[in-house]
Amino acid sequence: MTKAVYYEGNQRLRSGDAPAMEPLPGEVRIAVSYAGICGTDLHIYHGHMDHRVSFPHIMGHELSGVVDMVGPNCGSIKEGDRVTVMPLQPCDNCPACDAGHRHICHKLKFMGIETPGAFQKYWTVPVETIVPLPDNLSLKHGALIEPLAVACHDVRRGKVAKGDYVVILGGGPIGTLIALVAKASGAEVLVSEINPHRLELLENMGLNVINPLERDVVAYVEEATGGAGCDVVFEVTSSTAGAELMTRLPRTRGRIVVVGIFNKPVPVDLHKFFWRELEMSGARVYEREDFSAAVELAASGKLPLDTIISTVYPLDQLAEGFRQMESGSSVMKILIECQ
Amino acid sequence: MTKAVYYEGNQRLRSGDAPAMEPLPGEVRIAVSYAGICGTDLHIYHGHMDHRVSFPHIMGHELSGVVDMVGPNCGSIKEGDRVTVMPLQPCDNCPACDAGHRHICHKLKFMGIETPGAFQKYWTVPVETIVPLPDNLSLKHGALIEPLAVACHDVRRGKVAKGDYVVILGGGPIGTLIALVAKASGAEVLVSEINPHRLELLENMGLNVINPLERDVVAYVEEATGGAGCDVVFEVTSSTAGAELMTRLPRTRGRIVVVGIFNKPVPVDLHKFFWRELEMSGARVYEREDFSAAVELAASGKLPLDTIISTVYPLDQLAEGFRQMESGSSVMKILIECQ
Repeated sequence: MTKAVYYEGNQRLRSGDAPAMEPLPGEVRIAVSYAGICGTDLHIYHGHMDHRVSFPHIMGHELSGVVDMVGPNCGSIKEGDRVTVMPLQPCDNCPACDAGHRHICHKLKFMGIETPGAFQKYWTVPVETIVPLPDNLSLKHGALIEPLAVACHDVRRGKVAKGDYVVILGGGPIGTLIALVAKASGAEVLVSEINPHRLELLENMGLNVINPLERDVVAYVEEATGGAGCDVVFEVTSSTAGAELMTRLPRTRGRIVVVGIFNKPVPVDLHKFFWRELEMSGARVYEREDFSAAVELAASGKLPLDTIISTVYPLDQLAEGFRQMESGSSVMKILIECQ
Repeated sequence: MTKAVYYEGNQRLRSGDAPAMEPLPGEVRIAVSYAGICGTDLHIYHGHMDHRVSFPHIMGHELSGVVDMVGPNCGSIKEGDRVTVMPLQPCDNCPACDAGHRHICHKLKFMGIETPGAFQKYWTVPVETIVPLPDNLSLKHGALIEPLAVACHDVRRGKVAKGDYVVILGGGPIGTLIALVAKASGAEVLVSEINPHRLELLENMGLNVINPLERDVVAYVEEATGGAGCDVVFEVTSSTAGAELMTRLPRTRGRIVVVGIFNKPVPVDLHKFFWRELEMSGARVYEREDFSAAVELAASGKLPLDTIISTVYPLDQLAEGFRQMESGSSVMKILIECQ
């Protein structure tokens, strides 16, 4: 037997035994080193996604680990390889897959939601989801590759170019990673955030920040850009206030990227789209090249990834991690040590 | 003296004398042949744009005419040339102009709104706004070039390609021209419209139509596209219903073009942008290449432009034209004969 943490509905977590599974053909068993808690896990924990999970459910999809056992037909992957996982299982038989957009397949299974996830000692996954980690990347940083790949995808969708003025609305883990990736791409970056703990953390990472409750973000950006407006806005707050602000910041033909997951329609000023010929695109998860970019960027040592990691808990204290995330205190990313 | 129709506020029009102006250096005087009534003129007529006009105001910006007198420094333009006008006067000194987006200049003067327009016998305009008309294009069709350039711009902003499935929400003059331009580009086209007169007109032009009050547009498009959704949606209704429908129709990574002029923020399902990685862009007026495309397309004889023209009134019956436009009957484009 091995160990896992099970979600049993409405904020109930149970640490327990799990059967040790041998990998089937095309499968790889990973000894999970670290697994990060994502906002999505928090949603599951609160019962908002019960229609998508099977009980009891093992959450988690941001991880690093070491290959522990390799099933038949797994190519060159071998025991001892340090890896992470791109946790998407497309159907390969829908209009999105046919059009080459497998990452947002109409029937996408997201590992850790529709299938068991990484908050366990051993996680068995399809070999095609494996992403190798380079030797110079620590396993703690390796657990940040998945959210970093989200940020790389978002920045790519926003066509951020060197010299662009980029505003990120929302400085949580994803907003922060977007800011760091955009900055690494040569953009000038401003993060709008209201949580004072996060503002301090972001400033400590060398990011330019603004609190929209204290300063007029539109006036600030206008002045900073000579009256033009910014090149790209990332909406990562999923809030009515963010949706209102996002159309007031971009320059003529400026771009908006919708990263936040809105749970209902919100008022949007479509006149601004007309008037300034704004462009907006949604961005969801990632593609292979985003994982490659994330691995390369993390391994470069250019990002303050240690500052992103707030606390590390052992597997049987996953509930503590959730509680800290909800405390509203100085928290960014929480890792769970799974061995 | 010559003749003009003046808007004097709140649906008041007066036909009267106008001073005959000699063109200054860089100016051209046009004997206006035909001038179309645009929805924008209707907005002015109802007093919605009084803050932008100077009283008494001459409306009109869709025209054809013959060059009557040429001021100094006007290059090769000569008396007798058949022309239309691209009615934009950018400032050439703002961030939008600097970035090459002169057509949506921050301080754009739109001729016929901020300056006198075409509902007069002779219209004097800057030479750089002149667009020559080819001999094989009638002057009636020439008066449709400006709205056709809008449609060409919209279709270009929507990156419509051969074989695309395109849905146009709203079958007024602009929606209809978008449909015709998209069809001429090789797209499969569906126009959603609720006015039965317009539906009949559109069908007579060979366009595929649907009445959203009678049929489920989403189900129709899904079936027509094998469950994928459409490639491009043009929102031309400026309505809450249109803004709701526009996000439910596109395929994964499908595109939405905001053409309608919304007068207030409306609910938009931003979750759909995230989920399907939708893309949306605003489209406003046109650039030179859109006028060139419009002239070429109109001169090709491929478009049913005679069907677009509902009625022709003489200049002193402009008010009749406005009344017909508002009648809700079988009306598409009304032309005013200005000589």
